[in-house]
Amino acid sequence: MISNVLGIAPQAVEDDAMELLRHGCERNEVLLLAARLSEVQRQFRPEMGTLERELLDLESAAASGNLAQRAAAHLLRAPGKRIRPLCVFLAASYGVPRREDVAALGRAVELTHAATLLHDDVIDDAALRRHSPTARVVFGNSASVLGGDHLLVEALRTVRTTGSAVILDGLLAAIDSMIDAEAVQLERRGTFTVSRETYDRVVRGKTAALFRWSLASGAAIAGCSQAEVEVLGALGEDLGFAFQLVDDVLDLSAVSDESGKVPLSDVREGKLTWPLLCACEAQPSLIMTIRAAAAEPDPDFSSILSAVRATGALEATEARAWRFAQRATRALDSLPPGVTTEALRAVVHAAVRRGC
Amino acid sequence: MISNVLGIAPQAVEDDAMELLRHGCERNEVLLLAARLSEVQRQFRPEMGTLERELLDLESAAASGNLAQRAAAHLLRAPGKRIRPLCVFLAASYGVPRREDVAALGRAVELTHAATLLHDDVIDDAALRRHSPTARVVFGNSASVLGGDHLLVEALRTVRTTGSAVILDGLLAAIDSMIDAEAVQLERRGTFTVSRETYDRVVRGKTAALFRWSLASGAAIAGCSQAEVEVLGALGEDLGFAFQLVDDVLDLSAVSDESGKVPLSDVREGKLTWPLLCACEAQPSLIMTIRAAAAEPDPDFSSILSAVRATGALEATEARAWRFAQRATRALDSLPPGVTTEALRAVVHAAVRRGC
Repeated sequence: MISNVLGIAPQAVEDDAMELLRHGCERNEVLLLAARLSEVQRQFRPEMGTLERELLDLESAAASGNLAQRAAAHLLRAPGKRIRPLCVFLAASYGVPRREDVAALGRAVELTHAATLLHDDVIDDAALRRHSPTARVVFGNSASVLGGDHLLVEALRTVRTTGSAVILDGLLAAIDSMIDAEAVQLERRGTFTVSRETYDRVVRGKTAALFRWSLASGAAIAGCSQAEVEVLGALGEDLGFAFQLVDDVLDLSAVSDESGKVPLSDVREGKLTWPLLCACEAQPSLIMTIRAAAAEPDPDFSSILSAVRATGALEATEARAWRFAQRATRALDSLPPGVTTEALRAVVHAAVRRGC
Repeated sequence: MISNVLGIAPQAVEDDAMELLRHGCERNEVLLLAARLSEVQRQFRPEMGTLERELLDLESAAASGNLAQRAAAHLLRAPGKRIRPLCVFLAASYGVPRREDVAALGRAVELTHAATLLHDDVIDDAALRRHSPTARVVFGNSASVLGGDHLLVEALRTVRTTGSAVILDGLLAAIDSMIDAEAVQLERRGTFTVSRETYDRVVRGKTAALFRWSLASGAAIAGCSQAEVEVLGALGEDLGFAFQLVDDVLDLSAVSDESGKVPLSDVREGKLTWPLLCACEAQPSLIMTIRAAAAEPDPDFSSILSAVRATGALEATEARAWRFAQRATRALDSLPPGVTTEALRAVVHAAVRRGC
């Protein structure tokens, strides 16, 4: 699972994240994929090392800072998958970027992601994140809000150092799209209103927008053509959708406790994931059942899970994830063939394969 | 009181805010000040009109938007004093700015201020703001957090349209300083720890940083010299300190209910204002008394207020506000004499005089 294998511990900066991902894929006997990821690994070892060192420095400084910074440090201490910075590095390989600009964008996207996690955990009353108590549990909701604000400012300042107004505008647009998604999700929370349009609007903002920005900004900073920037941006959006759909499946599957969050947390938080949406479309009476269960303090979801599985909703969701992944890999055909394109293909496959 | 007289209702865009301020000052028999403010009034009627129209448009659009936007619209509907945009307009008059750039900075500073109010009200559990229930009461804490995020993004996007990286960096620094102030204040909440250094750190971030940016960015966008930008920035910081000290007095004075907030809200929220700090320095046993009262659900502050007054703390705070105002007006002597400098002098005086 990518959620484990790309989870690089800050104290093990010299460890090889991609190596772990490779092992994960080998375990799933996706040997060709593993071989390709070895190339990604060789290609981005310096960039990933720099990122980890910079995040570690930032976390160390924040750990002795004000309450907002300490809340931010708490989240940064439990490292994420770094998949968004990897997307920046990959896209930048299509051009000739300045090393410090790529590092800045990689750091910025990880900080933006961390900022939204701090705010999201407040909104969702979340207890666990990356196998640790959330910052809001340790430092309180207010500190987490301020911590998120602080990381957002850090991210924007970092992007500013590249001097690219277009890339900064893109990040601001992505952030606004993320806010829109959270607001729409919040408003519909617990209603489990079946709407494919709303689901896609939420996922576009909550997951796809930042993947889009990662790949588009990486390409733009490296001086790629506008056409390449657009292809990579669209590919990022598809990758984001695939990624979220697999997350939706993991939330309902037996292995979801490996995600570092409370199992079934989406359902508990009143969010209509794609498998639930498919199941409710197939069997509308499920809506009331799920709504009632989610409203209980300690619900037993096992019968609901059985009912959802029986509709074939998990397979339908996996199939939709694959369709997005396929469109993403088709887009790669219009890009210059080579190591980077194959690496990106491997990342797209890995994002979907982690559900295997 | 400036809090009333500069409170322009959106439906009365053509009304004259400065006219009201003039009346307020006449009531206080500060006729010279009133005459000077008439000049400010004539000078900035178009800019203020544009600002009100733009904020009204933004509020109308947001009112039918997502939950975050509706929370933002709720705050924007109850207009503020617009003192920060006025500072932008004044500083810009020292140079030759493009009209749309000045409008953008005026709008941005008001949106930034509104964003922080939305977050602050969540952090402070505030019930009233500008005589209305806070957005968090109407739409909930989560919606207010997202609403603040949305306005912050709007503000940054607006500044981006001016194309000035220095001004954008300045706003990001001001925002980070505001976050620091809130975090420090949050951490010390209810302890009433007597520290002049901490008080100044909090006020620098919470009030002075945005006043500094208003005047510095207005001057910078108008092509003023670096020396002028720095003088105006420092003047803004002094104005901010004077403004906050007067706010501190108002929170404890009989007329504080005119501020649109719950009277004594600072004490209730566990904040050590300057008058309380002075009183506790003079009479250390007060610290425990105030701490105990603030921890009660419905405390009777009347005896504390008498004790605070008896130490001469209110007069000491007013005196400190005047010292900041005097330093601000002295700084004006190094700027080109004329209508703008006199207008700025009037604003500084009005900021302190509103406590009369």
